[in-house]
Amino acid sequence: MKQNQCNFTYYKLEYNHKVIIKKQERRTSMKKLDSTKLSKEQQEFFATHLAYLATVSKDGIPQVGPKQSMKVKDETHLEYLEKTQQHAFENIKNGSKVAVVVADKPSHTNVRIIGTPKVGEKDDNGWYPVVISIEEIDE
Amino acid sequence: MKQNQCNFTYYKLEYNHKVIIKKQERRTSMKKLDSTKLSKEQQEFFATHLAYLATVSKDGIPQVGPKQSMKVKDETHLEYLEKTQQHAFENIKNGSKVAVVVADKPSHTNVRIIGTPKVGEKDDNGWYPVVISIEEIDE
Repeated sequence: MKQNQCNFTYYKLEYNHKVIIKKQERRTSMKKLDSTKLSKEQQEFFATHLAYLATVSKDGIPQVGPKQSMKVKDETHLEYLEKTQQHAFENIKNGSKVAVVVADKPSHTNVRIIGTPKVGEKDDNGWYPVVISIEEIDE
Repeated sequence: MKQNQCNFTYYKLEYNHKVIIKKQERRTSMKKLDSTKLSKEQQEFFATHLAYLATVSKDGIPQVGPKQSMKVKDETHLEYLEKTQQHAFENIKNGSKVAVVVADKPSHTNVRIIGTPKVGEKDDNGWYPVVISIEEIDE
């Protein structure tokens, strides 16, 4: 998660025969990691930041919303409670994959996963646990 | 944005012939609004909270990430600067619609839009402005 912390690059410009050093914001890019297992650091990051879940409808329309109950189940799974049972739940039942991101604004740090969700049995509150098998991690 | 602020419902339980009043978290649900114009209150909400953008790949895989540059252009458009030019940009160029959500964790308030993005001309920093025409607002 270190590569996004140094956020500037420097380049030279010539203007009226003077060399000027200019600071330019660097594009902060994410890359797909080789591992599909969450590191201890990534697990901690998921535990301490609000997760946003994206799904896709049958018609190919994206949906996104915060999921306060999202937590790390183990190093290859996330889990959350489907309480509202609206668009995201409908999309998941129709076979949508999911993307989950946690972001830290001050440090420009993001961790994102892509995975396949599986809906469990309704609990006593009428909520459905959804377990997400992690298939890709980007950081 | 008021309907999510009262977040509990009460129900009665009988236990050993005693009536117990129990508090249960209510499902906080969003609904599609009739309007596709952002109210002053919604514009203010977008201006003061970090927006998350979701897109869909050609293969139907969702992507999601924060977009710090997201702002309200006018009551029917959002705009952000595509700096990283990675998955979201690729998906948009391939015709993906977008979903954008802003959430306030303490008050359980969310505003979400669905829209069609249009990529503008590259600016002097090498970034692309993306203007989103709002087609649906959920709150």
